[in-house]
Amino acid sequence: MSDTPQSSRMVIGALIEANGIHPASWLLPEAQDDAPTDVDYYRGIAQLAERGKLDFIFFADTPAARTDDLVAWSRAPMYMNMLEPITLLSAIAGATSRIGLGATASTSFYEPYNLARQFASLDHISHGRAAWNVVTSANDYAAKNFGLDKLPPHTRRYDKAKEFLEVVKKLWDSWEDDAFVIDKANCFNFVPEKQHAVDHKGEFFELHGALNMARSPQGHPVVLQAGASETGKEFAAETAEVVFGTGSSLEGAKKFYDDLKGRMAKYGRDRDSLKVLSGISIVVGQSEADARAKLESWQDMVHPDVALLRLKQDIETDLSDLPLDEPVPLSRIPESSNFHQVYFEEIAGMVREGLTLREICRRYNRSKTTMCGSPTEIADQMEAWVAAGASDGFMFTFPALPSTLEDFVEKVVPELQRRGLFRQDYVGTTLREHLGLPRPQNRHVSEPRETVAPV
Amino acid sequence: MSDTPQSSRMVIGALIEANGIHPASWLLPEAQDDAPTDVDYYRGIAQLAERGKLDFIFFADTPAARTDDLVAWSRAPMYMNMLEPITLLSAIAGATSRIGLGATASTSFYEPYNLARQFASLDHISHGRAAWNVVTSANDYAAKNFGLDKLPPHTRRYDKAKEFLEVVKKLWDSWEDDAFVIDKANCFNFVPEKQHAVDHKGEFFELHGALNMARSPQGHPVVLQAGASETGKEFAAETAEVVFGTGSSLEGAKKFYDDLKGRMAKYGRDRDSLKVLSGISIVVGQSEADARAKLESWQDMVHPDVALLRLKQDIETDLSDLPLDEPVPLSRIPESSNFHQVYFEEIAGMVREGLTLREICRRYNRSKTTMCGSPTEIADQMEAWVAAGASDGFMFTFPALPSTLEDFVEKVVPELQRRGLFRQDYVGTTLREHLGLPRPQNRHVSEPRETVAPV
Ligand SMILES: Cc1cc2nc3c(=O)[nH]c(=O)nc-3n(C[C@H](O)[C@H](O)[C@H](O)COP(=O)(O)O)c2cc1C
Ligand SMILES: Cc1cc2nc3c(=O)[nH]c(=O)nc-3n(C[C@H](O)[C@H](O)[C@H](O)COP(=O)(O)O)c2cc1C
Repeated sequence: MSDTPQSSRMVIGALIEANGIHPASWLLPEAQDDAPTDVDYYRGIAQLAERGKLDFIFFADTPAARTDDLVAWSRAPMYMNMLEPITLLSAIAGATSRIGLGATASTSFYEPYNLARQFASLDHISHGRAAWNVVTSANDYAAKNFGLDKLPPHTRRYDKAKEFLEVVKKLWDSWEDDAFVIDKANCFNFVPEKQHAVDHKGEFFELHGALNMARSPQGHPVVLQAGASETGKEFAAETAEVVFGTGSSLEGAKKFYDDLKGRMAKYGRDRDSLKVLSGISIVVGQSEADARAKLESWQDMVHPDVALLRLKQDIETDLSDLPLDEPVPLSRIPESSNFHQVYFEEIAGMVREGLTLREICRRYNRSKTTMCGSPTEIADQMEAWVAAGASDGFMFTFPALPSTLEDFVEKVVPELQRRGLFRQDYVGTTLREHLGLPRPQNRHVSEPRETVAPV
Repeated sequence: MSDTPQSSRMVIGALIEANGIHPASWLLPEAQDDAPTDVDYYRGIAQLAERGKLDFIFFADTPAARTDDLVAWSRAPMYMNMLEPITLLSAIAGATSRIGLGATASTSFYEPYNLARQFASLDHISHGRAAWNVVTSANDYAAKNFGLDKLPPHTRRYDKAKEFLEVVKKLWDSWEDDAFVIDKANCFNFVPEKQHAVDHKGEFFELHGALNMARSPQGHPVVLQAGASETGKEFAAETAEVVFGTGSSLEGAKKFYDDLKGRMAKYGRDRDSLKVLSGISIVVGQSEADARAKLESWQDMVHPDVALLRLKQDIETDLSDLPLDEPVPLSRIPESSNFHQVYFEEIAGMVREGLTLREICRRYNRSKTTMCGSPTEIADQMEAWVAAGASDGFMFTFPALPSTLEDFVEKVVPELQRRGLFRQDYVGTTLREHLGLPRPQNRHVSEPRETVAPV
């Protein structure tokens, strides 16, 4: 049987978060206590995702641990104890052979040369499977670890991100693909004129040098992005190859999709050169009711401290002094946020609606949709989203690991394959090949040139 | 048979440099062309070193490729094309189980938070085998990749290095060893009072935060250092756990050893808490003459451009316009160097002696001694160095890979084992255990305290 043609396939990424994305996941019987720092645990998860022929796994990141409200944080310990994602992906590479390997790294807190090197190195180590999620970071805890009192303003962070990415791409083009052609007879290890040193002087960065590494298998590791603000979407339309949208509903996702793809033309980009994935959570059950019951049982395990903490974090305001069963006064929430714009809007919306604090705590889910259903129902929903033009695929988060990923791989993937909506097996070996994205031409090469070593 | 007691054993590290440290190594028939970016090649080398029960492998680093004199550099392509060492070690970790994994990272060009995280992560990934070689970097090419025109002055670099290391160690102590004790019944993932956020405000860095990772298996990854200047030695005496000396002779090495160990008392350090390893190159043959002939045959393959280039690099002066067979005028070399002090002294010494440029080119070997001999002769020399108190062991560089490492592992190691000078097998699992170094106590814990989660 021939495989599904590239164009009719959906892209599926898996965001992996220790015991799962659900704040109660670490409390479940299936949760491995030391998962956060156990590389073998992550190797196993990656192999499971690879068995499902998924396009890539992905690790989110923030370079900070919380240092206050520790009692509450210890009840929902996200980002408190984790392996560093670039080293983690390098360690996973050898235990897998096809699945893409993506991680977040912040343009606010890295040096472009170091980051360009590490992702290019990961791309070599994984034989063309690296992807970088370009974020500007969204909390002041991180800023304080890098000599700043707080994050720079939102648009300044994006100005810096734009220049950062440009510098990194220039570094990835430091050498032509065929620069390192060994010619022992003439004692040449590389072709000198195939080095193109970067000469960059911008507002944020100045660099004069070349990357000390042959161009990587994918040319450029795949560029991911997840900004949701106006600035973020514009940046994505100009530069991203994969975008994670927060898909709160099919309609919302379609609006986001059309909006983003519509912005691409002015940058001379083809709509197919950017894959928009809906960031959605998934619970498979025997029926929708069964799946929802599972999710509800996890919701019930969330400690009351945790919901209030999340609100506090996302609107920078502590509401824990308010009565739980009365509406939240509008005066108690700030007018705007320097952090995640979408989370802020979701909370502000509920406050404007007049919901009580308890209702807000219960409902607030950081703009996350959870698809609940039987394997067939999930496949139906996925098919509907893609058919409606709401997304090119999904960036799934898994409430509880490994079980919800296992269910997806063992039950939903076969159903998608049966319908011809997902690959039977990997065809290519690089992440770009999985995604159907072209390998970027080196900016210094206008047309294929002959490879002749100087003599 | 019981194993050699810790105290009578020598430490052996292996510096791994693509096809070998010799500038002609890449031209040899055994040289694998794509070794510099082939992770499987390095996995194989690491496994070979582990078969020899070596303490650790080590990757040197500089964050820059040369951008001028490219024709000459293409004839001796060190640091032009390499995998990034931290990602490389993470990838090697899974293919080995005991051998230590060390890499250089520069305090001049990293952010302490990022580096502290990555080495701690590598320590988790490798189950306690990580080591960091703290360097301040010694070339302006690197500076230009990080917004600087040239390197800061030597002593300023060390001032920064000192503060950098201090910050990194504070971050490694962000959490007590038993902070992440999962208590599902009471909904605590960690013990809040076992976090100790860093609150640092120094001349170079300001940080207020905690590492987002449980304390690593070794407590602190092992701190390596290789400075040779006065400032460098003082820094090492205060902070290093392993030091690479450039062992130009047994007498020179002994002087260095006594000098360094003598400086430790004023920092309240026990001499055994620092291992001094002589940085020596090694060629095993059937006899000394045989080994020397091998080395000579490699010397003969070095392109004339390469020797002049090394001189130019190390004294920041191009001598290629001078006649090869006349002494170098003293006026042509600078009075001092901001880079490797020892290399500079070696060259300046030969110029003062009145050697011709050709002789200097032929002799100059960056202060490296090469031990040449039969397995017995090599073992004799190693035994003599350690018995004389010239070193605690060796940081070997291998002129040609894999052959010179293979010879060492297969022929010299068994001889050392027979003499009771080297371990028959690993006893512990962490690098600290191999080295006989204590696991650092967390600075926030004065005496063992009971682990009770708050309720
Ligand atoms: C699937 C997904 C993963 C994300 N991963 C990260 C992450 O790892 N680190 C981070 O700081 N932000 C992450 N974000 C947040 C976005 O990068 C972005 O900061 C946020 O959506 C706010 O958008 P804005 O910066 O345009 O306001 C993620 C968002 C989504 C939807
Ligand atoms: C075995 C060995 C390995 C070294 N590795 C590096 C390295 O990877 N990167 C680097 O910049 N310097 C390296 N060095 C150089 C030293 O760190 C140091 O910069 C040099 O000896 C000059 O000393 P000084 O800085 O005290 O003048 C190494 C030296 C030795 C002996």
